[in-house]
Amino acid sequence: MQIAIPIFPGLTPLDAVGPYEVLSRIPGADLRLVAVEKGPQRSYQGQLALVADGSLADASAPDVIVVPGGPATRWLLDSPLVDWIRAVHPTTVWTASVCTGSLLLGAAGVLTGLRATSHWLELERLREFGAVPTARRVVREGKVITAAGVSAGIDMSLALAARLAGEDAAREIQLSIEYDPEPPFDSGAPHKAHPSLVERVRQRASGLRPEEATIGG
Amino acid sequence: MQIAIPIFPGLTPLDAVGPYEVLSRIPGADLRLVAVEKGPQRSYQGQLALVADGSLADASAPDVIVVPGGPATRWLLDSPLVDWIRAVHPTTVWTASVCTGSLLLGAAGVLTGLRATSHWLELERLREFGAVPTARRVVREGKVITAAGVSAGIDMSLALAARLAGEDAAREIQLSIEYDPEPPFDSGAPHKAHPSLVERVRQRASGLRPEEATIGG
Repeated sequence: MQIAIPIFPGLTPLDAVGPYEVLSRIPGADLRLVAVEKGPQRSYQGQLALVADGSLADASAPDVIVVPGGPATRWLLDSPLVDWIRAVHPTTVWTASVCTGSLLLGAAGVLTGLRATSHWLELERLREFGAVPTARRVVREGKVITAAGVSAGIDMSLALAARLAGEDAAREIQLSIEYDPEPPFDSGAPHKAHPSLVERVRQRASGLRPEEATIGG
Repeated sequence: MQIAIPIFPGLTPLDAVGPYEVLSRIPGADLRLVAVEKGPQRSYQGQLALVADGSLADASAPDVIVVPGGPATRWLLDSPLVDWIRAVHPTTVWTASVCTGSLLLGAAGVLTGLRATSHWLELERLREFGAVPTARRVVREGKVITAAGVSAGIDMSLALAARLAGEDAAREIQLSIEYDPEPPFDSGAPHKAHPSLVERVRQRASGLRPEEATIGG
């Protein structure tokens, strides 16, 4: 089973690494990080780089794709990455996204007429692609699964692991990564956080700049 | 504020990337991944590489260190990484670990006489270092904070962010990474999982081999 996680400069690393940590533990999973050009792909503002071990062309018929998000997705809606999603989606067994990775699925035409989720900040933008924004942590429509922001990729991947390898395998993975969350606060969703915090996160997001997505290139 | 996350071949990527995703969002945080030799550091079995942008020598007086774990920790108890922890710990503001990163803190002499946690599989090994194994998700003793397995690094880092930047800042980070977990199953801790799953994870761990920690290294 070939699993491809396409990465790019300006991604949010946890969007990719949460799913990696779950899906790579499925027995027989051949998981690869790929990118337009192989090599290091840095987070927005450049503090962390994940290595793509292959190019997109090296993953021409993956069984599963998991598309992460990040600040850069807004500048990648017409890109070779979106072309790749459009090309491989017809033959995948599962097409998944985390966070604003769903905007890339949308741009590739994958979400037309489907319910889908995204990071809460960008959820409404899914309408631009003919999708039905759905404020849930994980949304499945046929073989398309979208997850909410960043950390939701872990929950989504456990659900996906259960479908790929059975519920026992997924439970075993959950135990091996000791995923028994105890957040010290309860402000992980916009309806749970104080409105001033919601506004502050919104403000920060409005200041995102393309040049910060390619620092350290 | 300088934050160093030391990485190494055979680490568990989420142990490092969970804390990265939280702590790098603290305003003014200067976060760096470092290693014995800078460059890509691969996970056990080699499917994912994180890039260390500096050597351990480049981080000679960090304010905060967060030591991840992974299959390789068992082979690193007498290593330059442990020497580095021993050298920088006296002047840190916070010394933290995720998962079996606590074995490295223990080997560096940081945990003597302290309560500490680790991945549930290795919790009892903390006694070898004079620590008091404590089966909790996050354990703080003075400036030393240890987290349980893999995903617990996210919970720990939010608690640490609150101490570094205030509770509002930590809540804002939680909201920005949409950390409102909804695991699809409830088997994330050994007392919650079926005993057969616990046994299976234990079996797998007993088969870990040093040569798998440096694949593609």
